[in-house]
Amino acid sequence: MELISQQEVFDGWLRRYQHHSDATATDMVFAVFLPPQVAAARVPVLYWLSGLTCTDENFCQKAGAFRLAAKLGLAIVCPDTSPRGLDLPDEHESYDLGSGAGFYVNATEQPWADHYRMYEYVVEELPALLEAALPVTADKGIAGHSMGGHGALVAALRNPGLYNSVSAFAPICHPTQCPWGRKAFTAYLGPDESQWEQYDATLLVAKAEEPLPILIDQGSKDDFLAEQLKPELFKQACEQAGHPLTLRMHPGYDHSYYFIATFIDDHLRHHAEALGLKV
Amino acid sequence: MELISQQEVFDGWLRRYQHHSDATATDMVFAVFLPPQVAAARVPVLYWLSGLTCTDENFCQKAGAFRLAAKLGLAIVCPDTSPRGLDLPDEHESYDLGSGAGFYVNATEQPWADHYRMYEYVVEELPALLEAALPVTADKGIAGHSMGGHGALVAALRNPGLYNSVSAFAPICHPTQCPWGRKAFTAYLGPDESQWEQYDATLLVAKAEEPLPILIDQGSKDDFLAEQLKPELFKQACEQAGHPLTLRMHPGYDHSYYFIATFIDDHLRHHAEALGLKV
Repeated sequence: MELISQQEVFDGWLRRYQHHSDATATDMVFAVFLPPQVAAARVPVLYWLSGLTCTDENFCQKAGAFRLAAKLGLAIVCPDTSPRGLDLPDEHESYDLGSGAGFYVNATEQPWADHYRMYEYVVEELPALLEAALPVTADKGIAGHSMGGHGALVAALRNPGLYNSVSAFAPICHPTQCPWGRKAFTAYLGPDESQWEQYDATLLVAKAEEPLPILIDQGSKDDFLAEQLKPELFKQACEQAGHPLTLRMHPGYDHSYYFIATFIDDHLRHHAEALGLKV
Repeated sequence: MELISQQEVFDGWLRRYQHHSDATATDMVFAVFLPPQVAAARVPVLYWLSGLTCTDENFCQKAGAFRLAAKLGLAIVCPDTSPRGLDLPDEHESYDLGSGAGFYVNATEQPWADHYRMYEYVVEELPALLEAALPVTADKGIAGHSMGGHGALVAALRNPGLYNSVSAFAPICHPTQCPWGRKAFTAYLGPDESQWEQYDATLLVAKAEEPLPILIDQGSKDDFLAEQLKPELFKQACEQAGHPLTLRMHPGYDHSYYFIATFIDDHLRHHAEALGLKV
């Protein structure tokens, strides 16, 4: 891992690293906030998965999360949202497919299959790398926004015991049934829709092996709510499965980082509590 | 004033407005955060002046200020850093002159003199406009970063009684004696350096008529500290003039918005107290 930059913030450190990824067969950049407590001990980690068009930087700059994370003693890792530095056919043509839109799946279709393996990168490779190289424990939570909220829910539901906690802002709850998800899954996973189910939180929750409580915040003025996000279908599925879900609808709030900033502290406390930190 | 957008944040509202400015003879865009308290009463305003290359948006997205401002009941207004939409000779050639670099002066030299009048815009025109059109009182504080810190100090020192409070992050303290300032003042104000003094906080503080306490935060790892910012010279001038200054040096911090985010709450409380808000 090569350290690209380090900046002090709230008496902790925001670092950006570049490293070769075996999962994506490219170099990858990620950001990590290390709270001041790392001077004395290893700290647990919250993985934050960002949404369409984002890089590792959006959350760091806009979420206002480091103030409370520094107080709690919580590291936050922000991966990128796709491989970079490639030039695959149509990779940079649209905001919802290819670069900036990895959808946290392992692609099986060409031209994506050799590189667009963000599920493996986020769930397996990156934690192993960080736990070996940085002062963090193996205790972790996962959260995300929009496409990243989908990624967080899927990662947690598919890996019982791996995460202590999960939450999401305005997640794409049922990607097999919305335009963003159907476009991405068709390209990355092919036309056989049975292959899509492993990446759909609303389908996965029915067979979840672990009742990990899920916190979701959703703005009522979110332009993508009805067509792309569909939290009401996820809520139904959770109710049918008896899976614990707290879905909070917020009148007036949209899909932006101003919405995230408003409620991020609640999510940090949700994760910190499950990670055994003093809240 | 034309409302461009409104977003809910921390139960308050972030609005962007466009309006014709008489000072700059152009259209101008500004952002204003209105805290939830405006539903019941008018609130005081903090004017935030941004640094080189910024627009009205940088502070809103990156400073993490709205959480506490919403609690305090403080509006925050973020003007742009120069006129826009012009195409004057060399206006867009360099980051430290012309667009994004108005330096909060009233230019007297061509090609700038008809438009680059950001001092008048920020000190006179914008407050009059807002106090007539928005639910704000005439009580105001002023703060800023880098070029905007210079602007805030100059506005407060030149206008006794106008502002209840002033503060700055990493301000350009002595622009007549640093490369950024000398380049800008030569272009905007001409070669007669006696005309520059009215925009130099270190020179103005000697004749300040009002002992308004100044709060300045400065990172020790700021790349611009020695060559461009020179807080130690401002500190000397304040000591000689008996002007109250709290200059806090922060080891490890740089010039970025991560530095601002770390200490913005202290500044908001500094202003809120002077504005009679419950801190």
